[in-house]
Amino acid sequence: MIAIGTLLLMVPAASTGTSLGVIDALFMSTSASCVTGLSVLDISHGLTRYGQFVILVLIQFGGLGILTISTLVLMMVRKRPTLSGQALIKDTFTYGEGKQTASAVLKAIFVTAFCIEAAGALGLYLRMAPETGWGRAAYPAVFHAVSAFCNAGFSLYSDSFVGYREDWAVNAILSVLIIVGGIGFIVIADVKKRFMERKTVVRRLSLHSRVALTASAVLILVGAAAILVMEWNNTLAPLSVPGRIMAALFQSITARTAGFNTLDIGIMANETLFFLCILMFIGACPGSCGGGVKTTTVFGLWVLGISRLRGYTHPQVFRRTLTEASISKATSVVMVSMAVITLAIMVLMMSELGGFSHTQTRGRFLELFFEALSAFGTVGLSTGVTETLSEMGRITIVALMFIGRLGPMVIALAVSRERISRVHYAEENIMIG
Amino acid sequence: MIAIGTLLLMVPAASTGTSLGVIDALFMSTSASCVTGLSVLDISHGLTRYGQFVILVLIQFGGLGILTISTLVLMMVRKRPTLSGQALIKDTFTYGEGKQTASAVLKAIFVTAFCIEAAGALGLYLRMAPETGWGRAAYPAVFHAVSAFCNAGFSLYSDSFVGYREDWAVNAILSVLIIVGGIGFIVIADVKKRFMERKTVVRRLSLHSRVALTASAVLILVGAAAILVMEWNNTLAPLSVPGRIMAALFQSITARTAGFNTLDIGIMANETLFFLCILMFIGACPGSCGGGVKTTTVFGLWVLGISRLRGYTHPQVFRRTLTEASISKATSVVMVSMAVITLAIMVLMMSELGGFSHTQTRGRFLELFFEALSAFGTVGLSTGVTETLSEMGRITIVALMFIGRLGPMVIALAVSRERISRVHYAEENIMIG
Ligand SMILES: [K+]
Ligand SMILES: [K+]
Repeated sequence: MIAIGTLLLMVPAASTGTSLGVIDALFMSTSASCVTGLSVLDISHGLTRYGQFVILVLIQFGGLGILTISTLVLMMVRKRPTLSGQALIKDTFTYGEGKQTASAVLKAIFVTAFCIEAAGALGLYLRMAPETGWGRAAYPAVFHAVSAFCNAGFSLYSDSFVGYREDWAVNAILSVLIIVGGIGFIVIADVKKRFMERKTVVRRLSLHSRVALTASAVLILVGAAAILVMEWNNTLAPLSVPGRIMAALFQSITARTAGFNTLDIGIMANETLFFLCILMFIGACPGSCGGGVKTTTVFGLWVLGISRLRGYTHPQVFRRTLTEASISKATSVVMVSMAVITLAIMVLMMSELGGFSHTQTRGRFLELFFEALSAFGTVGLSTGVTETLSEMGRITIVALMFIGRLGPMVIALAVSRERISRVHYAEENIMIG
Repeated sequence: MIAIGTLLLMVPAASTGTSLGVIDALFMSTSASCVTGLSVLDISHGLTRYGQFVILVLIQFGGLGILTISTLVLMMVRKRPTLSGQALIKDTFTYGEGKQTASAVLKAIFVTAFCIEAAGALGLYLRMAPETGWGRAAYPAVFHAVSAFCNAGFSLYSDSFVGYREDWAVNAILSVLIIVGGIGFIVIADVKKRFMERKTVVRRLSLHSRVALTASAVLILVGAAAILVMEWNNTLAPLSVPGRIMAALFQSITARTAGFNTLDIGIMANETLFFLCILMFIGACPGSCGGGVKTTTVFGLWVLGISRLRGYTHPQVFRRTLTEASISKATSVVMVSMAVITLAIMVLMMSELGGFSHTQTRGRFLELFFEALSAFGTVGLSTGVTETLSEMGRITIVALMFIGRLGPMVIALAVSRERISRVHYAEENIMIG
């Protein structure tokens, strides 16, 4: 898909200026397919309507593809589900028949995604149409609804949504699309089931859904509060107080994967950029269009840390014990991700900062660090360095987007294999701390 | 001890210029007691011989104190040791009598430390004396031997050991002192026992010792190779090829806690600084004078990640299975440490970069990031920003040195309590990746 996208974007009709080179077309195609949203050019002016349409199609198929694959992978992994795990799958996917098939899941995902995107597009259309005219409003409404639900972060405006930063309706519609697109299909199905059930006994949500919803809510609120404090006198300064709260909230929501922005990332304070890096690393929920190491991964490790600090042997949360398998997976995903990012950052620094004295280029460290985390988390926020990257730098970012897209899932899948060691070695402590 | 040191350093006789203020004296006293080595002033010129002597005493007692406490804590923790764990303690500390007491351990530590420091001081004295005269060489030889063994990183030269960067003897003596001081007393005792035994059956080293020795060796060699590549045309450029290898090796050895330098940290490449940050975070081995989250912690998580990726349920290394308790501790230590460092970095950025536009101060991000990790890992390397820190920044660094010194140990200790949960909740998976 990336290859086809690359070819389609290299056609002269795709760009307004000269045709895109291989690396730039590859970059844009990967960025769209992986729903990242980083751009080596301004798609609002640099690409023709045809080129933008290619991007839109890549986003839509990339987003749905990752949604489907990750959902199926998560279902496959649970070969030996616990009691409540089994209940979850049955409740979620059987829809009464008693047997869930891949094609049924596929259909459910496509129908859900289409309905949500259509509703979002309609909302945006109704909001925009009075200003831009009923005919011209349709295309951006559809583009942005798809881009938001798929957490792609591509925008037809060169400043993303800075122009709409005080528009409550646009902010609200985009936020809902982003959150729903990033929470994961399994959670959506679980919640839907929960509220549509007419049984007398109220079924509780699965542990996974509760963890995903709680983690997302906490991250959004804490993120917004932190951004509010750190940017109050900086990028938030020109806004009214409710406007500041809205902008901080929007930035907190989009930073974990969507990648839209209503504030100027390039002039944000260092501490805010560093904080956004952490949000970008965490990312969205598993089984969604979002990237990062995933909210549940970080939540699991956090619960483990806190439980152990309180002296409990097993990680407990919401009156459940997390399985050792979940914790091991989480540790592997985080460790490998950190190693990959570290390597990529070093490559980027060597490829981008070669020719200058190191004390002069200190400032670019944070920008490249930010860029690498944005690519890995398929977020797409940037301080503006994307267009200035060298060829080596662009290739590194392409690799990082690709690894960030599939890596955590592949690692979790690999970790799920159960290989019985022929020899069981004696246990022995090592000293820690 | 920190308080007494602060008072002693505030006396006018301690400094060559005006007396130190409370915060500066507190900073220096904490830095010395925690064997960190960060300085708000150049101790070679800013402090009198008396002031330097106070620093020396603080280093010696701080280093021995942390060595003793951490060794005793590690021994205490093993209330329910595994079979081979029990063997280790008995073999290591009983010295034939059959019962180890805290005072016996204390004595063994003091004797070992004194012998090693005396040997190091003698070596340095013999090397230096022909140049500086037999009388004047004694004081720096003792100071630097103590500073190296305690991994303190204080030097009587304003450029640390840059002047000796091509001196094989000085490099070798300091390196050995640093490595022995950072490997941990338990490992020293274990190795000593291994080679002094006259039994016909050769006893293997404990898993802990093998992990500690392997991790240290790998980190030193990989670190040196990385520094060699990244700094070849930069700070290493003026040296001969063997000189470059020696300098890279020395920098790799000192970065994980000692904090001496023979290269100019301030003009290093961004990628090198970032890489050194990782080494500083990892730190030395538990039960030593060194800081950081500890080599065995990172090694344990690495083994878990690799074992799980290969499909094994349990983390296996050297024909042993790591206990779940070790892994849980390691996860807690790393998670909490990262949270503390993140918080400190944000405070530092807010306290230090307040008055300037953010695009102008981008460059200071990496320097403050480096400074925070250096303080947390009680390393003492600096790009040179220590002296320019605001009061708030100095207090943050003091707090970070203190937390970095005791934190990992306290966390590991807290995690070791075993509290039996009254209710055992059902296990349930969450989805990861
Ligand atoms: K995105
Ligand atoms: K040190």
